[in-house]
Amino acid sequence: MDVGAEALDLKLRTPFRISRGVQLVAENVLVSLTSGEITGTGEAAPSGFYGEKRATVLAALPFLEAILGDDPLLTEDITEGFERVFHHGNAAAKAALDMALYDLAGKRLGIPVYRLLGLNPERTPVTSFTIAIDSPEAMARKAREARDYPILKIKVGTPQDIEIVRAIRDATDATLRVDANAAWTAKEAITTINKLAPYDIEFVEQPVAAGDLEGLRLVRENVAVPIIADESCVVPDDVAKMAGRVDGINIKLMKCGGLRNALKMIATARAHHLKVMLGCMIESSLSITAAAHLSPLVDYADLDGPLLIQDDPFDGVRYDSGKLVLPDRPGLGVVPREMSL
Amino acid sequence: MDVGAEALDLKLRTPFRISRGVQLVAENVLVSLTSGEITGTGEAAPSGFYGEKRATVLAALPFLEAILGDDPLLTEDITEGFERVFHHGNAAAKAALDMALYDLAGKRLGIPVYRLLGLNPERTPVTSFTIAIDSPEAMARKAREARDYPILKIKVGTPQDIEIVRAIRDATDATLRVDANAAWTAKEAITTINKLAPYDIEFVEQPVAAGDLEGLRLVRENVAVPIIADESCVVPDDVAKMAGRVDGINIKLMKCGGLRNALKMIATARAHHLKVMLGCMIESSLSITAAAHLSPLVDYADLDGPLLIQDDPFDGVRYDSGKLVLPDRPGLGVVPREMSL
Repeated sequence: MDVGAEALDLKLRTPFRISRGVQLVAENVLVSLTSGEITGTGEAAPSGFYGEKRATVLAALPFLEAILGDDPLLTEDITEGFERVFHHGNAAAKAALDMALYDLAGKRLGIPVYRLLGLNPERTPVTSFTIAIDSPEAMARKAREARDYPILKIKVGTPQDIEIVRAIRDATDATLRVDANAAWTAKEAITTINKLAPYDIEFVEQPVAAGDLEGLRLVRENVAVPIIADESCVVPDDVAKMAGRVDGINIKLMKCGGLRNALKMIATARAHHLKVMLGCMIESSLSITAAAHLSPLVDYADLDGPLLIQDDPFDGVRYDSGKLVLPDRPGLGVVPREMSL
Repeated sequence: MDVGAEALDLKLRTPFRISRGVQLVAENVLVSLTSGEITGTGEAAPSGFYGEKRATVLAALPFLEAILGDDPLLTEDITEGFERVFHHGNAAAKAALDMALYDLAGKRLGIPVYRLLGLNPERTPVTSFTIAIDSPEAMARKAREARDYPILKIKVGTPQDIEIVRAIRDATDATLRVDANAAWTAKEAITTINKLAPYDIEFVEQPVAAGDLEGLRLVRENVAVPIIADESCVVPDDVAKMAGRVDGINIKLMKCGGLRNALKMIATARAHHLKVMLGCMIESSLSITAAAHLSPLVDYADLDGPLLIQDDPFDGVRYDSGKLVLPDRPGLGVVPREMSL
């Protein structure tokens, strides 16, 4: 199989600020994988927080390419091989190739990836739409403007968290989820979440630092709002540690290395009676669609990457009042936007 | 989809005695599932120990059939539906339909089930061959006769367990596994296993009663031989409870309800760093082949059903010095024996 890689710059519609910084552009990588007459495509959205940059994705790809072999359907061997080359880490690079393999496999068999996985496309969830950090007034305005989306995810971790959530709750009847991106100590989290609870919060994501598993448990035991782990739960090995400490986990292809590992995380989470959320980085419709193919298996989706960027180069998953609508084309079903008219 | 069911009697070559009884014939059920022009087949091997008989399989099938729908590729919805109809239980009935669905799906797509699952057929393990309970001399003779099989599984749970293993070790250099089928107390297990260890035992399966999870832990902490749970680990929800108590689990389609649940158990076991074994009841080449399609994912196989019965009506998985050889036909790749010449 032949691998191609090129830069994919995604400009955000507005600066995307979360508790640990602001982003104006996502420096992603577009990957192509050709086997015979068929080409599969994938996208890497590297995150410095998880040890990746565009340059490391491009540097990692040749090592991953070396173990691909000739048969795109040997996904178990290939993804195991990826872990032998880089034990954990370089997950976005792995994810780009993994989704390109599923794209190839689906195209070869003439069926969408969701059918290859035995899933019902009617059972996709409604995605949340993210309101990045800004002044409480500006965030409330964005919440009002997002009236097409019945679920909002509010980024917090500022000195004004209570004001932010109050302003947004005053502006909308939407379901509200709160994401602290590891900004609080456990003590701060308990105090803040108990003050936020009256504003009707569906759940709080990652209240404390990634490594603070005891903090997660403490928070969960002292608030009435469900707790979802994101930064604390990266790869399949992390899932079991979450049981008893949180109510659910946020799985991202760019954290775990692709669809196959994500499926393993979902199975493990279910065996532990954990809720499952599918999340994303700043990504185009290409990798967001890859994640969306798994979404009939999950409780919550935060797959709004394409809604946050300008000039999405791809057409794939669509949104019907926030509900994910999977393309019924073979493979991932993603096509360049100019071809989709 | 149309479901058919008929009795399938499998006569054992010799009486099959384990610690809790003897079996002369397996009263199984053959299931067919027709969608359009294509028919998938499956087999149920009901076990009274897990609450099933042929009559209960036949009684359960119409309830499961009622939720099948029209699309054999919607395996996630269908197997979830099976659990709604019968929460746990009736697993052999579910397994027969589940494998027939995978057979249909593979035939419709024109690929073997192992390819649908992304698995490499070269990576199948070597199956063990089971030596049922008899006198130590008779068991040693059977071990000598089984020279085509480099791994033997010795059924114990008798007053003569040490004599049995000693006689077999004197008769063969094969790898030896020991299966007590829940016959011992934890104290008996520790004493017996420590006496068996010098005979070079690869692992001991299910030393204590199914519900005695504390006993499993105690045994594991007091013997040098790895411990595998069988009767204690039935469905996906059981897997997490095994972590820290045993070294691995024995997954059987007839316990968990089919390939889809087995895949979930494998993913969960791996997240807990448990070893994985695929086992069976007394089954023909039909359902044994279904299990064998998953075997590239596991460490140990005990898929010797077809070797223990007379007049296997099917041709599917074959054995090359015990190594499982998967058929490369579409679906399960199982055909009636008279057609395979």
